[in-house]
Amino acid sequence: MSSAATLPSSYSSLPFKDIKISHVPADSPTPTKVLIFAFNRPDQYNAATENLLTELETAYHMIDQDDRVRAVVLTGNGKAFCAGADLQVGFSDLIAHKETQESRDKYRDQGGRVALAMTNCSKPTIVALNGPAAGFGFTITFPAAIRVAWSDAKVALPFARRGITFESCSAFFLPRLLGLAKAMHIATTGATYMVSDPLVRPLFSKLLPTPQATVEYAVGLATDIAENTSPTSTKLMRDMLLYSPDTPEETHKLESQVFLCVVGSKDNVEGVKSFMGKRKPEFSGSFDREAVPFWPWWKPRGNGEPSVKL
Amino acid sequence: MSSAATLPSSYSSLPFKDIKISHVPADSPTPTKVLIFAFNRPDQYNAATENLLTELETAYHMIDQDDRVRAVVLTGNGKAFCAGADLQVGFSDLIAHKETQESRDKYRDQGGRVALAMTNCSKPTIVALNGPAAGFGFTITFPAAIRVAWSDAKVALPFARRGITFESCSAFFLPRLLGLAKAMHIATTGATYMVSDPLVRPLFSKLLPTPQATVEYAVGLATDIAENTSPTSTKLMRDMLLYSPDTPEETHKLESQVFLCVVGSKDNVEGVKSFMGKRKPEFSGSFDREAVPFWPWWKPRGNGEPSVKL
Amino acid sequence: MSSAATLPSSYSSLPFKDIKISHVPADSPTPTKVLIFAFNRPDQYNAATENLLTELETAYHMIDQDDRVRAVVLTGNGKAFCAGADLQVGFSDLIAHKETQESRDKYRDQGGRVALAMTNCSKPTIVALNGPAAGFGFTITFPAAIRVAWSDAKVALPFARRGITFESCSAFFLPRLLGLAKAMHIATTGATYMVSDPLVRPLFSKLLPTPQATVEYAVGLATDIAENTSPTSTKLMRDMLLYSPDTPEETHKLESQVFLCVVGSKDNVEGVKSFMGKRKPEFSGSFDREAVPFWPWWKPRGNGEPSVKL
Repeated sequence: MSSAATLPSSYSSLPFKDIKISHVPADSPTPTKVLIFAFNRPDQYNAATENLLTELETAYHMIDQDDRVRAVVLTGNGKAFCAGADLQVGFSDLIAHKETQESRDKYRDQGGRVALAMTNCSKPTIVALNGPAAGFGFTITFPAAIRVAWSDAKVALPFARRGITFESCSAFFLPRLLGLAKAMHIATTGATYMVSDPLVRPLFSKLLPTPQATVEYAVGLATDIAENTSPTSTKLMRDMLLYSPDTPEETHKLESQVFLCVVGSKDNVEGVKSFMGKRKPEFSGSFDREAVPFWPWWKPRGNGEPSVKL
Repeated sequence: MSSAATLPSSYSSLPFKDIKISHVPADSPTPTKVLIFAFNRPDQYNAATENLLTELETAYHMIDQDDRVRAVVLTGNGKAFCAGADLQVGFSDLIAHKETQESRDKYRDQGGRVALAMTNCSKPTIVALNGPAAGFGFTITFPAAIRVAWSDAKVALPFARRGITFESCSAFFLPRLLGLAKAMHIATTGATYMVSDPLVRPLFSKLLPTPQATVEYAVGLATDIAENTSPTSTKLMRDMLLYSPDTPEETHKLESQVFLCVVGSKDNVEGVKSFMGKRKPEFSGSFDREAVPFWPWWKPRGNGEPSVKL
Repeated sequence: MSSAATLPSSYSSLPFKDIKISHVPADSPTPTKVLIFAFNRPDQYNAATENLLTELETAYHMIDQDDRVRAVVLTGNGKAFCAGADLQVGFSDLIAHKETQESRDKYRDQGGRVALAMTNCSKPTIVALNGPAAGFGFTITFPAAIRVAWSDAKVALPFARRGITFESCSAFFLPRLLGLAKAMHIATTGATYMVSDPLVRPLFSKLLPTPQATVEYAVGLATDIAENTSPTSTKLMRDMLLYSPDTPEETHKLESQVFLCVVGSKDNVEGVKSFMGKRKPEFSGSFDREAVPFWPWWKPRGNGEPSVKL
């Protein structure tokens, strides 16, 4: 699916201002299987501006189609991961959207757009929480496939203390990731927690002793995924976890139909062969959108687009 | 929304028999931001009677409309939290409801009515589990926003050992709070567990060394919430966690519409200003029901009332 | 419901080849309240063949109707629990199902059929994970009511490394049992984990020091359930956890209607009497399918059968 005409020859030289993309290793002149996306406003604790969000959403859409890229590590440059919406800028530009019924219906939270781009991207994201994260800076970690964190990092969901509410699809992800008991607690208090606090600890697969070790560990996980898993399998399984039916019986039906589509595929044959031969697999580079004719099997998008299908 | 005509001049002097309401501090002659609701049948381990349930439901409906009250601590007087339904009384009064199809359709579990009153109350509840809780005494803690417990308290869901089934909306809350693995385990055995047992531990945000310390800690949490969070934010966020759509996309749409309603509101302006000014916020006292015109966004109530809306 | 004509006089003498059923104690000539189902291909690490799956599904359907049996322990003979699908056999027999739209629509994953037989069986299963489990060997533990494991056992969900996807209803159970954060992590990496690893630990109610102690502990739990709980209560409560409505209000309605059906029943009267009399209860041996006239209350089955009812 990659095409020299539309895909960049290098991600690290793209003219982004508020995020920075690095190859792994950083001196590779061409795109690598693992990329690092870093929030890049270190003097403002990586507080999110409209431009930062646009750049991040754009980057996710670009790599979604790029066979050369298999996994992303998301982190922050400088001491913070991301301080959330830049309150120096504030929410004043949103007020205009409140004017008419039409503008209200059309309005979509920009953090949520980035969250959906990460959720639906065929390449999984591993978050390396290198420092404090608040508001959007915390909630944007929720759609990732995996989160690891520096053990001294702090997180906050301060919406109740600012008179606002959930964004970035956090009302969807938070109770599913953390359980309703802890989700209710941290949403209601709006307080700040160490990542080692039992109230937020289950969000993180591992705590590391330094910010640098955190990024290295995340890169290690991303590399393992990039080298040893089928992108079609990981994409379909993430979709099955997010868009799963309500009952065991209906899930049984969905699983059966998806399984029949992938069994005997190139990646399946290679996966079994390499396992029996005790060697590394050579999987295709991208999610095969043709593999499952009824994908996506859910509806509706809720983002203004028409419903997709049953 | 508070009105001298319909709201009590004091909660501690209301003529309740089986629950006791205290102001915080207790000697305040007028209602305080934090109230303590206590089961008050200490000689019967606070076993629940029809009257106790009616009083508790009434109390929740009263404070829902009262601007002066911002949070509730729920606990038990004496050595127990609540021993569940009073089996000396038994279930014999329920048999009459089994007679006709109409009476069966109309019947609603009284514990569930209290659970819904707590769930839908605009003031969050913090449970201080000061001693043993069984059956309804345990399940009534599930709709609370937060639960803390004395480390030596015990809990039981003994329905399987009495030939009965879930009540008080526990089939909804238990798997969401505790995860399906632990919920299945404790429902199937019907056994009694220390709150420190890993099978029930995740229900509790904190374990405290004494019953008194448990209540004090809960009052501390309630006070923090009462003084530092917007009631409109906490109510809407709890509703978004409970009545959330099935997909990230639909949740994105709901979040966008709710966010646009609260952004620029009095509480939002005060929340940002107080944060930038590093001072305590002065939030309005109540959930602003006008803030989100499409609230409630779910249906149906399932309690005999007609469906609400899309 | 048991009938000498259709139920076996002994489970241990049934002509199964790839599973072995034992009475507890093993030398009981007649069926006991607790049975042990063991995968029985120890030389192949109990890898699953079509015949093994058919035998296991058959066994679950048999005991579902048998009053003498109250609980099942599922384990593996030899050093492994179950190595998953036998890759020596492979998936080649599935390819034929891909040919026509009709054959694709009709295809159902055989692991999922076993998972549904365990899920819907009126006798709860307690898994004793005595050794390593991979793929189907791991996912078939998910529909059990309880899982306990030998502390040195390992588990793997290697689908992403074989180019395949979820089966055995695991897309339904995994996020509900383990939470979405850990489910996403282990599905995306496809790696192998010690059962003591925090990423999979919450699946298991208890870790034991030896394989033998694991089976003994599981038999102890099964015996407690068999002797002290009402089969009608445990079956209905498991169904309420799996097929529960989306909101507290609707769950309140379902709970009310189910509760009214069981209150005053023989098992309920015995449950209260035995409790007040501080003696062991004598519950009826089977799930009373007549107790709740609207059971099952969910739809559709998704297994090719017509929808059941509202």
